[in-house]
Amino acid sequence: MTPTASHESTALVLTADGPAVRLGHAFVPQAGEATVRLRLGGICATDLELIRGYMGFEGVLGHEWVGVVEASPDPTWVGRRVVGEINCPCGACPSCRSGRPTHCPTRTVLGIAGRGGAFASRFSLPVANLHEVPEGVADAAAVFVEPLAAALEILEQIHVRPSERVVVLGAGRLGQLCARVLALAGARVAVVSRNAARLTLLPVGIERRTLASLDNEGPLFGGLDASSAADIVVDATGSADGLALATRLVRPRGTIVLKTTVHDAGALAPTPWVIDEIRLVGSRCGPFAPALRLLASGAIDPRPLISARYALKDGVAALAAAGSVEHVKVLLEA
Amino acid sequence: MTPTASHESTALVLTADGPAVRLGHAFVPQAGEATVRLRLGGICATDLELIRGYMGFEGVLGHEWVGVVEASPDPTWVGRRVVGEINCPCGACPSCRSGRPTHCPTRTVLGIAGRGGAFASRFSLPVANLHEVPEGVADAAAVFVEPLAAALEILEQIHVRPSERVVVLGAGRLGQLCARVLALAGARVAVVSRNAARLTLLPVGIERRTLASLDNEGPLFGGLDASSAADIVVDATGSADGLALATRLVRPRGTIVLKTTVHDAGALAPTPWVIDEIRLVGSRCGPFAPALRLLASGAIDPRPLISARYALKDGVAALAAAGSVEHVKVLLEA
Repeated sequence: MTPTASHESTALVLTADGPAVRLGHAFVPQAGEATVRLRLGGICATDLELIRGYMGFEGVLGHEWVGVVEASPDPTWVGRRVVGEINCPCGACPSCRSGRPTHCPTRTVLGIAGRGGAFASRFSLPVANLHEVPEGVADAAAVFVEPLAAALEILEQIHVRPSERVVVLGAGRLGQLCARVLALAGARVAVVSRNAARLTLLPVGIERRTLASLDNEGPLFGGLDASSAADIVVDATGSADGLALATRLVRPRGTIVLKTTVHDAGALAPTPWVIDEIRLVGSRCGPFAPALRLLASGAIDPRPLISARYALKDGVAALAAAGSVEHVKVLLEA
Repeated sequence: MTPTASHESTALVLTADGPAVRLGHAFVPQAGEATVRLRLGGICATDLELIRGYMGFEGVLGHEWVGVVEASPDPTWVGRRVVGEINCPCGACPSCRSGRPTHCPTRTVLGIAGRGGAFASRFSLPVANLHEVPEGVADAAAVFVEPLAAALEILEQIHVRPSERVVVLGAGRLGQLCARVLALAGARVAVVSRNAARLTLLPVGIERRTLASLDNEGPLFGGLDASSAADIVVDATGSADGLALATRLVRPRGTIVLKTTVHDAGALAPTPWVIDEIRLVGSRCGPFAPALRLLASGAIDPRPLISARYALKDGVAALAAAGSVEHVKVLLEA
């Protein structure tokens, strides 16, 4: 097999008319990159936002995946089971040279910007982006590496003290992983969700509150002292309303971590952030190596979050399922 | 003189019908607090926001001042020339006990919340809030201690490296002081203002750009490299538009310092903060002691910012002047 050969492939594609499955999609390997054969893909809220018009993306969807290297400029990779970082930076610009390759202004992003994604039988990615999956990590866990890395990005960006009180807003795909990571750091974590069923998926030791209970059943953290405000609030609601609620729950000089990307702007009043000297930190992609370590050690097992599996050829139905509140993580099987 | 005696006083008062001067205003000293005789007051953008309804405040205005202690529970203060911190915390709550007295939820704030201010012949303040003014610091410089401390709060909150590029949006009262403080920290500072005349007040070494020139004359910092984005942007515009401009000018993983408090909310899109992993830091009151040090050493001389002086009895005209673009700092003489 040469890297310039074209292959028949099944792919889940976002077109101007919406998502569609292409049987016999022509896959052309990118010169100088590895060809990966998909094993499992995971549908993310960002995929659903892309369908709503976020980023103006068209092409093969998908950036959460585990696969096997089928061809590579470096042949030692062939046959290895891998996951991969989704940002493909230029490597030469000031951002790349300043150690911020994920912010390279000319980067492409797998299945999100300028580069077709992973929801295809075969796809290309630079070898530099690949991470081998340790033997003990099942495909169904490895497919969570990308969002788990995004959750770990919080700990890359801010110092979370074991004595601190953290509220995670949202018990969806990303909120679930953020809560697990923050609890492992020793913090007291409470998750707030509209959806009581999703709260039952949280591991023991993480506090659970429905959004309605915040008003009806008093303050968070059992109201243990006069101020039950949070030191840190993570907005993983995926909703434009999340930031206003985070502002209400965080203490003065506390931190709000922004994990929500939404297509639309909202009405926001920044003055409370000034008066209370709140810090807000936008947070996106994170480090893969520690995510793989936490899966390999078993400290995090994301598999209870899987609520459905679909064949890749049924990808349109899988996207619809992922958009319903009954589902958390929906997987695609190649 | 006993602390319970009542005195005749001239005062600039915010009433439900707007600002008014009260001649023969009855001043009743607060038990256990110092009585200060005003020498000079400074009008701040916050005073103008209070008149527009911010905080719902009514009473004597004023929180920038220099005066002389006329009576005090600790008699060693009597006769000393002082400035004073404006937050009066309870000292006992979790915020106070955690080292965040300026965020005490039951605090009063001089001339802003729950406590009459300094634009009066005499006013009360806790002795703990007072700082003696060194002999070499003129009244016209000392009256800037409160806003200079607010500018220094930026350096309390974030690490500004001497090698970094900082943009200050707004060349008004607070923007001018923020630019001076950041330039002293060694950073390369550019100030952007709608008002070209205000830019001429900046000291040598601080770069100046009109807002219009940003679109017409290319990037900031002389376009020295491909990315002319700022490491840090301080929004001291006092305008609801400032934050959107700050978002446009800051680099990925850069910091936006929020100094603007406005009465109204605006339409804001937080998604760029997530994608570019921007950090936002609300910033309010700062430390008085370093502000006094920088004035005493002459490293900062704010007196060129004084554009008018009015007698306290002409305070309503002074407030009107402070609201016009021709003026920067307007002082009140007791």
